[in-house]
Amino acid sequence: MREPYIEVADYIRENDNFIVAGHMFPDGDTLGSTITLFQALRQIGKSVTLYNRHGVPDNLSFLPGYGSVKNVLQSPEKLPTDEVTLILVDLNDPVRAGLENVNFKKSIVIDHHLTNGSYGDIKWVEPNVPASAVLIYRLIKVLGVNITLDMASNLYSAICVDTGTFRYSNTTSEALEIGAALVKIGVKPAFISENLYNDWSESKFMLMKHMLNCLEIRDKVAVAAVTNDMFERAGASKDDTENLVNIPLMATTIMVSAFYRERDKDDWKVSLRSKGEVNVAKVAEHFGGGGHRNAAGFRYMGFIETAKKELFGLLQGAV
Amino acid sequence: MREPYIEVADYIRENDNFIVAGHMFPDGDTLGSTITLFQALRQIGKSVTLYNRHGVPDNLSFLPGYGSVKNVLQSPEKLPTDEVTLILVDLNDPVRAGLENVNFKKSIVIDHHLTNGSYGDIKWVEPNVPASAVLIYRLIKVLGVNITLDMASNLYSAICVDTGTFRYSNTTSEALEIGAALVKIGVKPAFISENLYNDWSESKFMLMKHMLNCLEIRDKVAVAAVTNDMFERAGASKDDTENLVNIPLMATTIMVSAFYRERDKDDWKVSLRSKGEVNVAKVAEHFGGGGHRNAAGFRYMGFIETAKKELFGLLQGAV
Repeated sequence: MREPYIEVADYIRENDNFIVAGHMFPDGDTLGSTITLFQALRQIGKSVTLYNRHGVPDNLSFLPGYGSVKNVLQSPEKLPTDEVTLILVDLNDPVRAGLENVNFKKSIVIDHHLTNGSYGDIKWVEPNVPASAVLIYRLIKVLGVNITLDMASNLYSAICVDTGTFRYSNTTSEALEIGAALVKIGVKPAFISENLYNDWSESKFMLMKHMLNCLEIRDKVAVAAVTNDMFERAGASKDDTENLVNIPLMATTIMVSAFYRERDKDDWKVSLRSKGEVNVAKVAEHFGGGGHRNAAGFRYMGFIETAKKELFGLLQGAV
Repeated sequence: MREPYIEVADYIRENDNFIVAGHMFPDGDTLGSTITLFQALRQIGKSVTLYNRHGVPDNLSFLPGYGSVKNVLQSPEKLPTDEVTLILVDLNDPVRAGLENVNFKKSIVIDHHLTNGSYGDIKWVEPNVPASAVLIYRLIKVLGVNITLDMASNLYSAICVDTGTFRYSNTTSEALEIGAALVKIGVKPAFISENLYNDWSESKFMLMKHMLNCLEIRDKVAVAAVTNDMFERAGASKDDTENLVNIPLMATTIMVSAFYRERDKDDWKVSLRSKGEVNVAKVAEHFGGGGHRNAAGFRYMGFIETAKKELFGLLQGAV
């Protein structure tokens, strides 16, 4: 049996019509990877459409070539489905691309997320690579594509997003080697970091201030309860809460951070983050939620003071 | 003429007694680099002392082998100076190592800072590498040293500190390639990032809160004036101000951040940071200070409200 990546490369060589699609609520990896694959397929003379149901969010519109992303397929019912092959990148289920009702000639899945699903005539899934961009890099090398500066910037951005610029535990030597190769092509790491990390809105900034002002620290646990009132005063939107839960973990002594976001009266959306061995998935499960060891969440219905008390109680001695 | 690094390698092969020294107020690059060179020279059978006048600060005591750093040389007057060679790493002037009054057989300078100085019987200075650790990596490879996990972790940490983990504009493909090689040896990027970036004290955290509460934003300029009173309430020390000036720059709309730190009544230490082309060195010079385009400082004597007014006035139209 051929290796999946050889199978994918051979299939691409032998066929012509493609739709490359990433997942909804797109992040830097799915967008950087799909834009690159789109440009690479174009370069080798293929007919190809680049699709993302949700388009490109503002904060990722620095990715070169983002304008090629279509969020509407022209009359999808009339797609020449007997000719078009779907390539999903960074997901393994057409539902998450918003394409579950379209039939394709064939489907290819290129992903680094674990899956039990069976979708994909050709499946190339490697859970041990930190980003789908690593697989796209390998693929376009095999296809003999000349990696342009635009492709390189997209791939570098994608790897940065999924590894925290080589800071997370998923960082592999291969990811760093690819980074080196992309910088050789001309990628400017500072330009990309500037766009990825200094992209806060002023309202997010104000929201952080309110969060810090209401922060309660007990033992090694930090809890913030951000109310609708604070949201209004900061002029903040939903997106502005992203990553705020991680801020208290910058302190060495804080092992768990909990971010309670008021949805409605006595109705809270809760995000938990922890360091090292501290398992917050168990805490989330206790409250009917779930997640991973270091990142989990749940919904809490009740008084916020009771909520905090219960949380501090549960975590006492566990951190 | 031989390349300087060949000259350094040959000299090390042919001699035995060394003192390896970094600069005072040591950072991760000078410490990671000197610890590695010390361990490498030991491995190839040399007599070697590792010296830093200021020892190892708490936040860098995760560097493996940091315990070998001596901050006192035994009776320096009695050093067998006709036998000992000094190797300065990450600096090019013995004054900055606190060793200006000691005579050595020979001196070697390994550095990546620009210098007009003449110190060093052998000078190997490359201003285009992002960290001295890059030079140490090349050197110990040439010397045939077996790079241990301890050495690898020290070098990786050093490169991370000077490149912001591959985020700053000085990041080269060589730095990433070395990073890849070090991860292959077994370096854990997440362990190092955790130690480098999540090392805030709770008092620093509280100080950030006070800073955000007093932040004034006008046009694209953010100004914070942190008083002695805020310091006391946060329980903060001088070290706790480090990097706080950079926080407002996380917002896309902020191009200049100014941090006024009260030294005494109407006496302020001012740090300025900017993005891109905005030149804050000129602003600092106006107030009798100096610095670089994106990082500068000055001292201000007077009322804080006047200070802010002057600063906003100067920057109006410049950002």
